Amino acid sequence: MKYFITGVSGFVGRYFVEYLQKKENDADIFGADIAPSCNLPIKYRQIDLIDKAATSEIIGNYKPDYIVHLASISSVGQSWQNPSFCFVNNTTIMLNILEAVVQNKLNSRILSIGSSEEYGDGEMPFAENMPLNPKNPYAVAKVSQELLGKLYAENMGCDVVMTRSFNHIGPNQSERFVVPSFMRQIVNIKQGAENKMSVGNINVARDFLDVRDVVDAYYKILHRAKSGAIYNVCSGKTFKLSEIIKIAEDISGININVEVDTSRLRPNDVMVIVGSNQKIKQELGWEPQYDMQQTIKDILLSMEQNNEK
Amino acid sequence: MKYFITGVSGFVGRYFVEYLQKKENDADIFGADIAPSCNLPIKYRQIDLIDKAATSEIIGNYKPDYIVHLASISSVGQSWQNPSFCFVNNTTIMLNILEAVVQNKLNSRILSIGSSEEYGDGEMPFAENMPLNPKNPYAVAKVSQELLGKLYAENMGCDVVMTRSFNHIGPNQSERFVVPSFMRQIVNIKQGAENKMSVGNINVARDFLDVRDVVDAYYKILHRAKSGAIYNVCSGKTFKLSEIIKIAEDISGININVEVDTSRLRPNDVMVIVGSNQKIKQELGWEPQYDMQQTIKDILLSMEQNNEK
Repeated sequence: MKYFITGVSGFVGRYFVEYLQKKENDADIFGADIAPSCNLPIKYRQIDLIDKAATSEIIGNYKPDYIVHLASISSVGQSWQNPSFCFVNNTTIMLNILEAVVQNKLNSRILSIGSSEEYGDGEMPFAENMPLNPKNPYAVAKVSQELLGKLYAENMGCDVVMTRSFNHIGPNQSERFVVPSFMRQIVNIKQGAENKMSVGNINVARDFLDVRDVVDAYYKILHRAKSGAIYNVCSGKTFKLSEIIKIAEDISGININVEVDTSRLRPNDVMVIVGSNQKIKQELGWEPQYDMQQTIKDILLSMEQNNEK
Repeated sequence: MKYFITGVSGFVGRYFVEYLQKKENDADIFGADIAPSCNLPIKYRQIDLIDKAATSEIIGNYKPDYIVHLASISSVGQSWQNPSFCFVNNTTIMLNILEAVVQNKLNSRILSIGSSEEYGDGEMPFAENMPLNPKNPYAVAKVSQELLGKLYAENMGCDVVMTRSFNHIGPNQSERFVVPSFMRQIVNIKQGAENKMSVGNINVARDFLDVRDVVDAYYKILHRAKSGAIYNVCSGKTFKLSEIIKIAEDISGININVEVDTSRLRPNDVMVIVGSNQKIKQELGWEPQYDMQQTIKDILLSMEQNNEK
């Protein structure tokens, strides 16, 4: 099977390639990303997917069975800095991929990645049939991307499956995200490089899913979902950031002095976000395999090993 | 008061200018449109609102109290021909206007025009609190435009009011729309230039509102609505196309031979579309002033007069 993966250099992209290569001996993988190279054992091309002609040409020539569309301007914070860029980028890239499939008369199945941010506020746990109330430019872009996916699936004969993905964590995630930034500080404290940990509001609780469970969910959606279907990808559980710190303390065998840095506090931070994963469990037989202890252990181990290199 | 009107050369734009000039003696009106000139007694500039810098410059210099954003790629049919163009055009222009207001630190109130197409299928009459199910590229673009409007109103301190507008009719509408195309044929038959009328499916029923009631609704929304509010603009009544032909026959005093042209039949045409106008009536004190007889009479009269010119 031929897989075209956008955003392949990213956190999820790398795990997806690893998963695919274990799962299918003969997987033919073509990665694309805005980065100059990807350092992965696959075919690769640097491309800005905003370029409609280039996107159509690359997809038209490769004729993938599956398009795993992971590329995204994905930071809520950044989306406030430049709402227009975030919106146009996410939606135009989605349109360019859809149009590439239509114009080249391909049957490629497209996996489009959405976000828990689409739900905004509302009753929790968020389920797929609940109303969407996007509250930031990134969330609006993701709702629009999903509307385009549904439109092409329902009205233009495209084969599109979609997610609303919640927080991911796992080894090798960028340290601009909260959990790896905390884990880095804990590793530094354990190694004597720091003596206290700087945090924001650690009472917020989120639905964190191990990235290895994320890619397993994406693979099952890609291979088992009906066209037009949308699935939450989440653990269905919440952990407060303070609980994650406690788990990491126990694993590391150290006590952490935690200091609140007011510059890390965000106004109007939602206290709890949690999704329901009943639909993907029941319809596609997916089950998460990694618990929080395992994930944190693997993140800490990976950071310690990287420090030693 | 200073009014900046986009799409001013269009059907609604011309009526809005006329309405404004009657309503406010000292209305300062600046029209913008992609057309080279507008033939209206107002300040005018040709502009493609896709051009972000030009949009920001024109709005920043004029500093309008009100922005009446009528410009739109508004044809559902055309949106199927080029979904990407329709989506990008409608949403990017909305973003450019919003960003122009933010970047120039203006307090301009923006009126954003949406569509009954946003509702798609669902229970009728459509009311503002019902779920949106956009079923064509134009509808998806309008939902996305509305999401952007709400986002900037609720989270970025912009003053945005929005509509979901149903079918408009009235004198001087383009004859690519169904009612004026029928009326033209009736005028031609009356004058002996044709002997029968060619139609598509005349059993479809739509919620038609006289364009003079539309601009009255827009003015009241602009001046009376709360920021972030969305209003249906519709008659709340349905007329079948066959009933409109009958009204025109009675007014013209002729009998029409109607012939179905199968090329005018659209697959999957929704039989009835009707909205509720309870919200705008109750909250803003708007009431439609033109009934269907009056509207049809005025359309026919205007066509006959234009023929004589």
